[in-house]
Amino acid sequence: MATGLVNEEVLKRVKGWAPYVDAKLGFRNHWYPVAFGSDIPEGEPLQAKLCGEPLLINRVDGVLYCIKDRCLHRGVPLSTKLDCKTKNTITCWYHAWTYRWDDGSLCDIITNPSSALIGRQRLKTYPVQEAKGCVFVFLGDGDPPPLAHDTPPGFLDDDMVIRGKNRIINSNWRLGVENGFDPTHIYIHKDSILVEGNDLALPLGFAPAGRPEDSYRIIDTDAEGGRRGVYDLLGEASVPVFEGYVEGQMVREGHFGETRVANDISIWLPGVLKVNPWPNPGLNQFEWYVPREENSHYYFQTIGKRCANDEETAGFNRDFDAKWLPMALEGFNDDDVWAREAMVDFYADDWGWVKEMLFEPDMAIVAWRKLASQHNRGLQTLAHVKA
Amino acid sequence: MATGLVNEEVLKRVKGWAPYVDAKLGFRNHWYPVAFGSDIPEGEPLQAKLCGEPLLINRVDGVLYCIKDRCLHRGVPLSTKLDCKTKNTITCWYHAWTYRWDDGSLCDIITNPSSALIGRQRLKTYPVQEAKGCVFVFLGDGDPPPLAHDTPPGFLDDDMVIRGKNRIINSNWRLGVENGFDPTHIYIHKDSILVEGNDLALPLGFAPAGRPEDSYRIIDTDAEGGRRGVYDLLGEASVPVFEGYVEGQMVREGHFGETRVANDISIWLPGVLKVNPWPNPGLNQFEWYVPREENSHYYFQTIGKRCANDEETAGFNRDFDAKWLPMALEGFNDDDVWAREAMVDFYADDWGWVKEMLFEPDMAIVAWRKLASQHNRGLQTLAHVKA
Amino acid sequence: MATGLVNEEVLKRVKGWAPYVDAKLGFRNHWYPVAFGSDIPEGEPLQAKLCGEPLLINRVDGVLYCIKDRCLHRGVPLSTKLDCKTKNTITCWYHAWTYRWDDGSLCDIITNPSSALIGRQRLKTYPVQEAKGCVFVFLGDGDPPPLAHDTPPGFLDDDMVIRGKNRIINSNWRLGVENGFDPTHIYIHKDSILVEGNDLALPLGFAPAGRPEDSYRIIDTDAEGGRRGVYDLLGEASVPVFEGYVEGQMVREGHFGETRVANDISIWLPGVLKVNPWPNPGLNQFEWYVPREENSHYYFQTIGKRCANDEETAGFNRDFDAKWLPMALEGFNDDDVWAREAMVDFYADDWGWVKEMLFEPDMAIVAWRKLASQHNRGLQTLAHVKA
Repeated sequence: MATGLVNEEVLKRVKGWAPYVDAKLGFRNHWYPVAFGSDIPEGEPLQAKLCGEPLLINRVDGVLYCIKDRCLHRGVPLSTKLDCKTKNTITCWYHAWTYRWDDGSLCDIITNPSSALIGRQRLKTYPVQEAKGCVFVFLGDGDPPPLAHDTPPGFLDDDMVIRGKNRIINSNWRLGVENGFDPTHIYIHKDSILVEGNDLALPLGFAPAGRPEDSYRIIDTDAEGGRRGVYDLLGEASVPVFEGYVEGQMVREGHFGETRVANDISIWLPGVLKVNPWPNPGLNQFEWYVPREENSHYYFQTIGKRCANDEETAGFNRDFDAKWLPMALEGFNDDDVWAREAMVDFYADDWGWVKEMLFEPDMAIVAWRKLASQHNRGLQTLAHVKA
Repeated sequence: MATGLVNEEVLKRVKGWAPYVDAKLGFRNHWYPVAFGSDIPEGEPLQAKLCGEPLLINRVDGVLYCIKDRCLHRGVPLSTKLDCKTKNTITCWYHAWTYRWDDGSLCDIITNPSSALIGRQRLKTYPVQEAKGCVFVFLGDGDPPPLAHDTPPGFLDDDMVIRGKNRIINSNWRLGVENGFDPTHIYIHKDSILVEGNDLALPLGFAPAGRPEDSYRIIDTDAEGGRRGVYDLLGEASVPVFEGYVEGQMVREGHFGETRVANDISIWLPGVLKVNPWPNPGLNQFEWYVPREENSHYYFQTIGKRCANDEETAGFNRDFDAKWLPMALEGFNDDDVWAREAMVDFYADDWGWVKEMLFEPDMAIVAWRKLASQHNRGLQTLAHVKA
Repeated sequence: MATGLVNEEVLKRVKGWAPYVDAKLGFRNHWYPVAFGSDIPEGEPLQAKLCGEPLLINRVDGVLYCIKDRCLHRGVPLSTKLDCKTKNTITCWYHAWTYRWDDGSLCDIITNPSSALIGRQRLKTYPVQEAKGCVFVFLGDGDPPPLAHDTPPGFLDDDMVIRGKNRIINSNWRLGVENGFDPTHIYIHKDSILVEGNDLALPLGFAPAGRPEDSYRIIDTDAEGGRRGVYDLLGEASVPVFEGYVEGQMVREGHFGETRVANDISIWLPGVLKVNPWPNPGLNQFEWYVPREENSHYYFQTIGKRCANDEETAGFNRDFDAKWLPMALEGFNDDDVWAREAMVDFYADDWGWVKEMLFEPDMAIVAWRKLASQHNRGLQTLAHVKA
């Protein structure tokens, strides 16, 4: 039942969210974005890695297909030297075992066309879906649920236009999630170019005012189409801290800007954040922390805007390129990258999950851990990766 | 009995050739080439590594000697700073323990000439033999067998002139052997400079026609002087594939050249390939995949030609430098290097030996694995390396 | 009782000094120098690592303080981005948990000033003391002993002026100690710039003349104020070797210089060498091999001179900068650095402590190992580091 990836003693000592601590390689049977559609032109396969499994994704007649990037024969990556003899197939560069993109079947072996294996073996394929310009892969077994169940509210709406950026970060995916959803990590952003540049109202932190259980709301029913997530309500249930005190002296102020953002912040399975609005009124940031290997994740960042027509879309595209990409997804979020990496050593041997000392504003993170422990669709295990 | 180097569960699940899978650091009690004689001028010791053991080889009055490159005292490599005070000895740079090249005896300690250890201790020495300009070391215990038993037929013949190249490849030695002896790996060479440049007849693969056991011949008796090996007879027992088909379309042709090569291909213990003729009629390629460490081997490549006199030898030398070195040992075989390295990840945790899926033309490889399992003279173990 | 850091089988097989072999991360409850006072100006914290524990040292109103460099909350290093809002405190860059330098107490949390944790939690602090321009940290529990107990005789004397250099060496700390105290390692220094430049009398080694137990003197009582150490008396109890012989030929001479140095050499707990005089009459070298991590130590080198007045001090400072730093601490001791690193592989898996073969002049090293095993104040364990 355990994944075989996490210290057993640690798992015994973590109460309340052991499955989450065990999910070092992420959750199985979920949809994850791994690339943008524009990264995969027709007939130019792209290599990726998801929950420890090597993938190869290609576009054939406009449709995306995803196969395991490992030849059945001697285990070499097909991507070491791409060799596509027909548009429907990929041929291994080594002994010319040839697989169909659509079902992974071993349809030909050029070096031995009389082989008994032809037509009898099959490479693992992964359901893949393109939505909003993003390429989602279903890492799991059996029929996948609708993509809507694994994306935040609004993301798939017809009028939502999405732009974004993808990069590999050298930390476990959960350090990405917890940094992103963490209400008081805003302290690291206090000098960000975005705060001044977009005149944000940004406090230094939050002093929870009510009962802890009022500081978040769990969405764990099927009411919203199978989505499971947690809303951070700290903004409502707390006093925002605009004056920072140390030893009784006021040592730092937050930024009293005119731009009101981040009215609601929510985290959704399998690990995607929605900030509404952000980085500007009328915009939403949706960002995924996608398990790649134990020590890296894709930081898949997107900003969405509802556009009624082509003109609005064109305007959003201009703003994205000129402002939101450099100021928000890069300028502002670059600080999140080093913050996650600074946590790596402490959690590297799993004992960080035992030794950490959470405080009141972390209640929403705790709610996420419990929800993820209870409602994930399966843990990625060492056995899955070794298969 | 197990080497302690390979996953135990894997060893249980591999039927037929478990000793071979266990031989991660190679076979003990065999001769291996580690350098060319010209790499070791008189009095200029050369460092090497064989089956995990550090070696130091020197030439004294023209004769080669090999000692373990690790001082008995505090375990430092003698090669860190070479210090030979007399031609017959090497002095450790650290505390001046001094060993004789010929028998490894601790003959002097400069820093304490009255030490009781002098004359009573001995560094491990290795039998070493120079033949055909190649330096062979016997990695084992007791008296070595004749060198002829560990070299392919013809290599040591009086009229055979040998030239070559040596380099370190970052893969286990068996991935070298199996790539070299693999009949259908020729697919990776289809665009090689050698094929066009020397107008080779080179198919894309082989469709085995007869019974699998007709596709190889095992040499496991003492008839040829103690040599053990396997001939790949696929060329005879199969239909060469010159037209490659995918989805019923012809997608690639082999090269219909005039130059007929590779009439017979054979692999010999402890891991040396003979291709006859290659890369041209009248030439043979002999190449060793020498265990160095778990994750590296020497790729010791040679080409041999029978020369009746000095003039023929001079002609071969010119051709080797002008053509066979750049076009064959480099141009052609450079593709083999990255092919081996592409297999590394799959076999790194040993499970590749279980998960691989062999096909019909691999029968010769299977025959090699069984022969090597049965007829090796011992496995190099973790205990040997730690000794 | 074992540290959990060293191979158990090795510990069983080492007789006489198993605790020393187990002390891979050094001894607990001792004072160690980690920096020079001039490296830590007022309000500019310096990061260090001692026996595997991350430290942060700061100067406040001239007084030094040392805290653990790891926030209680999510375990990040405070040093990743220093943020000191008041002179008495340091604020974690992540969530603004704020600690007092003097007692480590969590005095404020800017992001949630109402947190119940404030005033109730405490970061580990370490006693720190500045002496002779060097910053000593007590790595341990409870009240520390006087600094004098962990420094060599003379070092703290009122008229002793100390200058030095600190650097990180990539070897375990014990390889540093044993190289430094090793009487016959002088062989590596025979061509040092210092030998010729300062015309030293430097033999090649020592032939012990008397009983082994006459070659060292153990100081294990409290007579000298709690210090424990070993004097190497080999200089007295042996014949210095000025002529090096191999195979009966004289192959090398020592340096017959006019400058007599190194009359006595001693090693002291927790791992500090005194050479008297060195590198010149009237000077002493005191050098520490400070455990940092398993595979690195601070090589904390100092030279001391008794100075009666400011003029003498100024003269010593000039000489140190012009001669003793470049010729002795660098030129001469740079050879010690690579010698230690050359031992790393052999001792890396702990088996070197079993396989090594000591000789007569190593008796002083053996005495040190036994003394250190018996009189250390505790072993640093894996549990200490993980705490």
